[in-house]
Amino acid sequence: MSFKQAPHDLLMVPGFIEFSDEVLWANAHPAVGLMSDEFVSAFGEVLDGLRRVMYASKDSQPVVLSGSGNMGWDLATLNVLEPGDNVLVLQTGHFSDLWEESLLPYGIKVTKLTAPVGQRPSIEEIKEALKQKKYRAITITQVDTSTGVLSDVKAISAATHEVSPETLVFVDGVCSVGAEELRVDDWGIDFVLTAPQQGLGCPPGVSIILLGPRALKACEERKAPVESYFFSLKRWIPVMRSFEGGKLAYFATPPTNLIFAMQVSLREMLNGPVSLEERFEKTKQASSKVKAFVAEMGMQQLVSEELLRTNGAANSMTTVRYPKGITAADIVPKMAERGVVIGGGIHHTCKDDYFRIGHIGISVTDESRGDVDKVLSNLREVLAEAGYKP
Amino acid sequence: MSFKQAPHDLLMVPGFIEFSDEVLWANAHPAVGLMSDEFVSAFGEVLDGLRRVMYASKDSQPVVLSGSGNMGWDLATLNVLEPGDNVLVLQTGHFSDLWEESLLPYGIKVTKLTAPVGQRPSIEEIKEALKQKKYRAITITQVDTSTGVLSDVKAISAATHEVSPETLVFVDGVCSVGAEELRVDDWGIDFVLTAPQQGLGCPPGVSIILLGPRALKACEERKAPVESYFFSLKRWIPVMRSFEGGKLAYFATPPTNLIFAMQVSLREMLNGPVSLEERFEKTKQASSKVKAFVAEMGMQQLVSEELLRTNGAANSMTTVRYPKGITAADIVPKMAERGVVIGGGIHHTCKDDYFRIGHIGISVTDESRGDVDKVLSNLREVLAEAGYKP
Repeated sequence: MSFKQAPHDLLMVPGFIEFSDEVLWANAHPAVGLMSDEFVSAFGEVLDGLRRVMYASKDSQPVVLSGSGNMGWDLATLNVLEPGDNVLVLQTGHFSDLWEESLLPYGIKVTKLTAPVGQRPSIEEIKEALKQKKYRAITITQVDTSTGVLSDVKAISAATHEVSPETLVFVDGVCSVGAEELRVDDWGIDFVLTAPQQGLGCPPGVSIILLGPRALKACEERKAPVESYFFSLKRWIPVMRSFEGGKLAYFATPPTNLIFAMQVSLREMLNGPVSLEERFEKTKQASSKVKAFVAEMGMQQLVSEELLRTNGAANSMTTVRYPKGITAADIVPKMAERGVVIGGGIHHTCKDDYFRIGHIGISVTDESRGDVDKVLSNLREVLAEAGYKP
Repeated sequence: MSFKQAPHDLLMVPGFIEFSDEVLWANAHPAVGLMSDEFVSAFGEVLDGLRRVMYASKDSQPVVLSGSGNMGWDLATLNVLEPGDNVLVLQTGHFSDLWEESLLPYGIKVTKLTAPVGQRPSIEEIKEALKQKKYRAITITQVDTSTGVLSDVKAISAATHEVSPETLVFVDGVCSVGAEELRVDDWGIDFVLTAPQQGLGCPPGVSIILLGPRALKACEERKAPVESYFFSLKRWIPVMRSFEGGKLAYFATPPTNLIFAMQVSLREMLNGPVSLEERFEKTKQASSKVKAFVAEMGMQQLVSEELLRTNGAANSMTTVRYPKGITAADIVPKMAERGVVIGGGIHHTCKDDYFRIGHIGISVTDESRGDVDKVLSNLREVLAEAGYKP
């Protein structure tokens, strides 16, 4: 295969990453019938691969449909929860706030454990809240891309199971699955939602969810009918099981080319030269390199010092405060002029105060690309051009 | 550009068609930031192109999101209708039945004008029904891919405006937009839903809707809150308007690569060597050729004789009854062995009685491909091998 993607700017935004030539070539797959063995087996392989990336057993059911990551919020609420349910939302930034917002149209009663920007609710606060009221579910944003805060999913889930074993554990893994460790079975996670364009290394356009056994049971036993046609998992789950059994089933047309692209990206993750565990390790190493550079340059991160000391900053991304005298105009557009795309701030309280660098996927697993170094060397020069002296 | 898609079976299923090399190459676009001028202008161009394909003015608003065609049913119901509304569904096959089914979870009161398989409700029946009760909307499936029946959208819309001017006209254009004429402004259509993988010649994974001025107004003035987060058009419409104004706005991650692919496919349709009007004409010519072959071979279509005489059969596809002594096993799999993929029957009352051929897109606009002839010559041989004598 001699396919080579077109020359382009280096993309290192948390939210979008570089894709391999092989993944993009698969996304250019010629038209294929849904009933073809090639497509049916690709879909089955994708579903099983997603289980493996999340360390989930066959008792869990992944569902992949045309959509986007945040569609998973609606899918969880409509199918696993019921109107009037209490849900505990852990605030770690903009995206956990949006999760809260997504619950409200469905009549869910939300309690939010808030934290200042760059911080997160403590395990003690979470335990205390779980003792105060009976919650049907707790929501955890593993990496909040607006702040770079990493939630300790393992510890939060353990605390939840200890204090309130009936509470379901929901995880937003949009900027984490495939980049940060997430062990569904071992950690007792009930629902994960994610998207392909970050840790999974595949273009966007797909909503990925995974239901653990308790969420599947809740889905099947819910009393209220699901007030949706397209979002009813009772329609989607049999389709997924059929594809995994090697047989076409139809509810809506699947995104065929993205399924082929995900098949390739999951193979790269699961059967490639870098194992899944090594991938997490390499993501951590890249993160350490970026964060050490930030410190060396005398800059601060948006994530609090305390979190930085206690594994509370994402490994998949870094949020950097502009140093004194430097503004957004000095960095993000200047980097873009050099062919390196990084992200501006997006938290409404301080979006002009910081920028964001993503370090995920092939940019960290394939050091020969030199992507991380390219970002840092350009950043050093751009800062110098703006007159910044560390 | 020297990209050439991989060798593959010829796909002529109503529901899936061949894609051009240029479209597939665009779908392999390297990772791109949402804020890049290239992406923002592509998205704006796609939205405007969709208006032009449907002959809609700037007063209409197209919305494109990650999803599938039938997601448009939910979007219409949740945003334009309200629980308790009466809706008149015109039955022309399986997909109009599913549209009815999609309305029920939302508390819509449905009246269905039924018709035998291969037929459609008459204009007189529709007028009579509209006189009996006040309907908020009427639903028309322009081409029902389960039967090959074509609805006369222009006449139905005119009848609706005449008898019940307040009734909104909803059109499912999944297997028709880009292949069959649909004039939103001239015909007074209020809501269209469609998908990219048929008449628009682009891989699936996108939900496309277009709201006319009355649907936009209904959307803005509806009393009941929209009981959805992801499906709330009040969130999506400003995003679309922003992209059309040349500026990024964000609600959920758009399917970047499919947007680039649609940009190319719409350019092919609107600025290519074959004009949109010629495209419709060429689709009709291909349809006539296939239907003449069916008659020459002494076979029957699923569409009734009366509809065949009165432009009531789709131009984008043909449904063919197996002749005496021939079964599904003799045709569809034998064609597949020859590298030509056509579709089996899918209407629950008679799925083993007929097969389906799609003739849309580059397979009809680019005669040098010889796709239609390839289907017909192989079909002739396969029928002969099965012992069929016309």
